[in-house]
Amino acid sequence: MTETAIALPTFADVETAAGRLAGVAHRTPALTSRTANARTGGNLVFKAESLQRMGAFKFRGGYNAIAALSAEQRRRGVLSFSSGNHAQAIAYAGRLLGTPTTIIMPEDAPAAKVEATQNYGAEVVRYDRYSQDRQELADRLASARGLTVIPPYDHADVIAGQGTATLELIQDAGQFDVILACVGGGGLLAGTLLAAKALNPGCRVYGVEPEAGNDAQQSLRKGEIVRIDVPKTIADGAQTAFLGQLTFPIIRDLVEDIVTVSDAALVAAMRFFAERMKLVVEPTGCLAAAAVFTGAVPVEGKRVGILISGGNVDLPSYARFIGG
Amino acid sequence: MTETAIALPTFADVETAAGRLAGVAHRTPALTSRTANARTGGNLVFKAESLQRMGAFKFRGGYNAIAALSAEQRRRGVLSFSSGNHAQAIAYAGRLLGTPTTIIMPEDAPAAKVEATQNYGAEVVRYDRYSQDRQELADRLASARGLTVIPPYDHADVIAGQGTATLELIQDAGQFDVILACVGGGGLLAGTLLAAKALNPGCRVYGVEPEAGNDAQQSLRKGEIVRIDVPKTIADGAQTAFLGQLTFPIIRDLVEDIVTVSDAALVAAMRFFAERMKLVVEPTGCLAAAAVFTGAVPVEGKRVGILISGGNVDLPSYARFIGG
Repeated sequence: MTETAIALPTFADVETAAGRLAGVAHRTPALTSRTANARTGGNLVFKAESLQRMGAFKFRGGYNAIAALSAEQRRRGVLSFSSGNHAQAIAYAGRLLGTPTTIIMPEDAPAAKVEATQNYGAEVVRYDRYSQDRQELADRLASARGLTVIPPYDHADVIAGQGTATLELIQDAGQFDVILACVGGGGLLAGTLLAAKALNPGCRVYGVEPEAGNDAQQSLRKGEIVRIDVPKTIADGAQTAFLGQLTFPIIRDLVEDIVTVSDAALVAAMRFFAERMKLVVEPTGCLAAAAVFTGAVPVEGKRVGILISGGNVDLPSYARFIGG
Repeated sequence: MTETAIALPTFADVETAAGRLAGVAHRTPALTSRTANARTGGNLVFKAESLQRMGAFKFRGGYNAIAALSAEQRRRGVLSFSSGNHAQAIAYAGRLLGTPTTIIMPEDAPAAKVEATQNYGAEVVRYDRYSQDRQELADRLASARGLTVIPPYDHADVIAGQGTATLELIQDAGQFDVILACVGGGGLLAGTLLAAKALNPGCRVYGVEPEAGNDAQQSLRKGEIVRIDVPKTIADGAQTAFLGQLTFPIIRDLVEDIVTVSDAALVAAMRFFAERMKLVVEPTGCLAAAAVFTGAVPVEGKRVGILISGGNVDLPSYARFIGG
């Protein structure tokens, strides 16, 4: 299949998703911080998806994707794979929509995320992400059980759902010069681009990924999807090895740039969020803010939207990060 | 002066305060948690004043009290005394309104609160709260420097300002069966009572204080203000020894009851807020929620408003609380 044969989601899909999510997803607050503005010289607005249902923006895409299925597909159930938040999103959305869910999760996924996924009623199947191919495992299970696969990012309805966070941000807080979103597989960034470029065409949108795994940055520079080894970083939500067939072309065509930040910068941002904004933010959720705090994306005099992607972090790990 | 000669604030003063605070204070979000509902059997709505400017509801009362002064009074400056958040509130409000501020703080106040107060531009004067009389010190300084004293709770405009949190909660989230607020000197509880009883007369309002210092509960039982030694509790914002001349009669006449919770229950609530709601809440800010989680106030089948008073806690202490 050539790339042009793939049907990419559009802003109309984001609007459809917003309709499905109205009254189901939280309309999360857009928060400001005098200290953050003083420190960066920008006028920053933080979209706190850490306060979303199940603690991350992933609820939007997961719910939208299951809600878009036929009644028969929903009855048979869905299968997904995820290093964390997408798993909870599918499990939770499945419960709300009465759809059985099976989730393939890596053996080293944070305990809090595995437990939360099981608590939402999903069956969790573990695998070793350093040696096993989760796609192959997923295809095999789905085929044997008649399940619809909803991957964590490379799916039009997932991307469209994620875009509703930025749609809300612009509706609630107005136009921006710059918007930043973290990038793992690119679902949030692609959705952000669809919403931002439709509602706020002059806005420059940046993706931010961990230094340890800059496959998106490499892919953008090279003009094709670059695969890397699973990166070792505290940003477990961005431990992806490659962009998707749907997310890459959207990012390639619309993004301003992809920048990277270190794990140390993520810890500093985590401490800032706790101390000054009273928010528990997971490492991956700090990527966009860290790019602004480190100056990787200059924001002096700019109006800046920052997506805080989630807040799901084991308390013992979190205590070590902020107490260190 | 007999008690009846004291002019108590009314709901009209809360409405006036709301007008002064519009566009200045944050309209903080009213948050919900499926897990909290499942755990308690109630339908809980949390008013997150931890996300208020300077991290606590105290901004409301402090700003309202300074804004209510004459231009001449504001030019000369104000003086206050506080174990923490009121200090920051006065300092910050003074800066916004161009009023010089002097704050008397205890020597063992949390470092983060002292620093934040100084960073907002206030002059901080330290005293030993176990041996020195802060009222006497305040009167002496105010008289020598021509400053207007704005005490942390026993002041009509402070009480009225605090009431705006509950006014917003009811406007935004509707009617409640029960509302809970922490009680130290009683400013938040008195303001909450004025707003709740005017907008939602059938609502029962509870005050919650630390077990170690139940002076408000004793005062309610005895029908007069009971003074205790400064209690030793992690709820530093509620380390008050007695209710005020203005707050006591309002509480006595309108409150349903005063209940207490242990420091251990505060730590458990702090962990719940971090893990499930992704909020950093200081120990005092956990009082109202802890009363619901421990069953001190039964909420089965009830619609319940819970005031989260603030989120200002030293990161090292916080890391110990949640990591333990």
